[in-house]
Amino acid sequence: MASGSLWQPLRQSRVQLTNQLKQARNYSAPAQGSIPAAKKKYVPKSGTYPRGFKVSGINVGVKPGNTSKPDVAFVTSEQPCAAAAVFTKNKFQAAPVTFSRDLLRAKKNRGIQNVIVNSGCANAVTGKGGLEDAAKMAQEADKCVGNEGATIVMSTGVIGQRLPIDKITTNISNAHKALGSSHDHWLTCARAICTTDTFPKLISKTFSLPSSPSVEYRIAGMTKGAGMIHPNMATLLGIIATDAPISPDVLPSALKYAVDRSFNSITIDGDTSTNDTVALLANGAAGGQEISSTSSPDYEAFQTVLADFSAELAQLIVRDGEGATKFVTIRVVDSASEAAARKIASTIARSPLVKTALYGKDANWGRILCATGYSLISEPGEAINEVPEIVPEKTNVSFIPADGSTELKLLVNGEPEMVDEARAAEILEFEDLEILVRLGTGDKQATYWTCDYSHEYITINGDYRT
Amino acid sequence: MASGSLWQPLRQSRVQLTNQLKQARNYSAPAQGSIPAAKKKYVPKSGTYPRGFKVSGINVGVKPGNTSKPDVAFVTSEQPCAAAAVFTKNKFQAAPVTFSRDLLRAKKNRGIQNVIVNSGCANAVTGKGGLEDAAKMAQEADKCVGNEGATIVMSTGVIGQRLPIDKITTNISNAHKALGSSHDHWLTCARAICTTDTFPKLISKTFSLPSSPSVEYRIAGMTKGAGMIHPNMATLLGIIATDAPISPDVLPSALKYAVDRSFNSITIDGDTSTNDTVALLANGAAGGQEISSTSSPDYEAFQTVLADFSAELAQLIVRDGEGATKFVTIRVVDSASEAAARKIASTIARSPLVKTALYGKDANWGRILCATGYSLISEPGEAINEVPEIVPEKTNVSFIPADGSTELKLLVNGEPEMVDEARAAEILEFEDLEILVRLGTGDKQATYWTCDYSHEYITINGDYRT
Repeated sequence: MASGSLWQPLRQSRVQLTNQLKQARNYSAPAQGSIPAAKKKYVPKSGTYPRGFKVSGINVGVKPGNTSKPDVAFVTSEQPCAAAAVFTKNKFQAAPVTFSRDLLRAKKNRGIQNVIVNSGCANAVTGKGGLEDAAKMAQEADKCVGNEGATIVMSTGVIGQRLPIDKITTNISNAHKALGSSHDHWLTCARAICTTDTFPKLISKTFSLPSSPSVEYRIAGMTKGAGMIHPNMATLLGIIATDAPISPDVLPSALKYAVDRSFNSITIDGDTSTNDTVALLANGAAGGQEISSTSSPDYEAFQTVLADFSAELAQLIVRDGEGATKFVTIRVVDSASEAAARKIASTIARSPLVKTALYGKDANWGRILCATGYSLISEPGEAINEVPEIVPEKTNVSFIPADGSTELKLLVNGEPEMVDEARAAEILEFEDLEILVRLGTGDKQATYWTCDYSHEYITINGDYRT
Repeated sequence: MASGSLWQPLRQSRVQLTNQLKQARNYSAPAQGSIPAAKKKYVPKSGTYPRGFKVSGINVGVKPGNTSKPDVAFVTSEQPCAAAAVFTKNKFQAAPVTFSRDLLRAKKNRGIQNVIVNSGCANAVTGKGGLEDAAKMAQEADKCVGNEGATIVMSTGVIGQRLPIDKITTNISNAHKALGSSHDHWLTCARAICTTDTFPKLISKTFSLPSSPSVEYRIAGMTKGAGMIHPNMATLLGIIATDAPISPDVLPSALKYAVDRSFNSITIDGDTSTNDTVALLANGAAGGQEISSTSSPDYEAFQTVLADFSAELAQLIVRDGEGATKFVTIRVVDSASEAAARKIASTIARSPLVKTALYGKDANWGRILCATGYSLISEPGEAINEVPEIVPEKTNVSFIPADGSTELKLLVNGEPEMVDEARAAEILEFEDLEILVRLGTGDKQATYWTCDYSHEYITINGDYRT
């Protein structure tokens, strides 16, 4: 609570007025049946969920107008877990971020059993009172399992207003009663963490590890994405649970590796929110040999499984980007360094000029090249830096078609290609597209996923008050 | 030509096809009479121009469809000048950037007489041939004044295609014949550098210096802005001329100081182009004592004049931002460092969430706070950094109304204010707005100027091919 304790409590009168102002706008989790037709394929009809975990999603009415949709999610393990989390670096971090970070530090990533989440209110910029609210949520969940200091807390939604904390705390025991391990339980739980998402984001997988090839391990995860309708932020939450046995000592590094290659490799608009949190719980319920060293073959295998799983989960957020009409993979390969490849991929993915061109189905290699060219340069006012990772005459840019057909070369060794515009138009008709940048300066690479900027993005985020 | 010599010449077949493809789209300088009513106030009806400079703008038809609007600009001084320029840091720098940078280095910022500019084609990503074209433009202008190595070259427009170089070089003598020093000459010259600008951007001022208070010095400048319609880039060009006597040894540092606080403090969408160039020529024609030391009172006075002048010029680019409906000043004050203040201002100015909220006339302090909070954080994958410049409970955010009325406080010492929404709506009705962020961690500051993101921005840059 180091940074939180410095905050002054919110003056109640302000909160009340803010609440009054905000009540006019209600955004809630997508109801079943309201999922856009094009997105239904991303919602699973069944799943294989990790042993020993139970989950629920119930309605408590965090937003007064929400009387039916789930807005509190409870994830629990029958036995204490190793747990790790990656949090936003935003300096204005929300109360649940401060609370959960401090908890994991204090517990040394051990003895965690629950994740309790509310949607509809982010509990951000809420001062000392907000921290107390986060702690109350955790305490109620702790009581349900009879284990103190066992609960990670997450909140997502409107910022700058206090939680209706009594509504939440009095209902946590109901959320506990509603726990179950069926597919429907998992899907309802995934719906409960949504805000402006148009579909719940849930994935489950099975995997094995080299040391015990006969053991079937399971991993399941849910996430919610970039809903930023006023006055929300791009709050990203993720909860991943596995029944593999992983030591608390190595779990954080596995999660960090995975998040860097998944949740930290997507961008809708480059805004990093106050609440972003991805948590991983491992309860070991499937048995087998514990992974306790980062140099073991099991660790390496699990790291890859987790990174791939996380990438698939994170990609669902991009699929649901506000106003998005395209799902675009940016691959930067043959780079002198991975950091440079990441920064270039990120810069292309964030460039409004690239994103509007994609919306316009325009094979505008010049904008991709331009973004590449300024991605690693120093800040204004700073000296010019050399950027050895980019050599114009070694740079290649291609479109990789979503149907697996031959790539369309746009720039070859720094020279513009004769672009077959009819072919480009064909490729750009697909919802999916890969932009491949070959730097020719090394053997490192990075991948980002992004969407386009559409008129609808402006409409959604301009938030016309009608 | 160090980097240019590595480039391969373009294969002619490609260029021809590219040209054929591009000819369908013609963008040209704004004609008089076609300037939007709301922008007419930014176009001066008279001016006081520096002595010894002559300028012209003529039509050569860089784009085949352009048969009347000026597209070649010639700026010349009767006597050789001290000259300095600030160039794009983009790794894919255009041929005229390479040429002009090498020239100024070789000439040690001395003996420059001309700036020759074409619009309609950026001469970027054009390999060795492009560099030869830039050199040819310079040589023709050199011939006109009988002085070798005296010409800075700039190009702006479509990238990836070669200049119609014969059209340009055969007409440079005509541009020289058209030179003059009247207001109309300056305005025509300013029009000739435009691409998708909706109005020419020209300013002139007089000033004096402490050592010779009776001498009237003059400064004039023109710029062109962020026109990014496919396949153009956000090419920014600026040409500033003064009759003050300034040593070539101190001119570059004065220009760098000014550009950091003007052209490097504006953003339309954060894309840094391949061609950006701002050049300053000082011919000393007004007489007076030469400024030769950066520690002299004259230098300090000139530096301030130049920075203010450049800021005014740069702001015209933001006024003409694509689809812009708002002109927004972001001031970050009371910062522990100027670099941090600049980065925070820049991040707020670039945030799509802030820019769409401004378009929606939405007093969304949460998005401003969010952008502030992530502006100084480390890259994904890198360790968390401390960011001592931002302390949540010391942070204040206000709107400063354009009519000089009382500020509207949105966040006070990290706490949300009771926002008077009616008052906020009033303030957001003005075209102009200042967002003031007080960090409370020091006494440094920085200012950025930006515009909003509108539906029209998406329409313009999505470039629907109809």
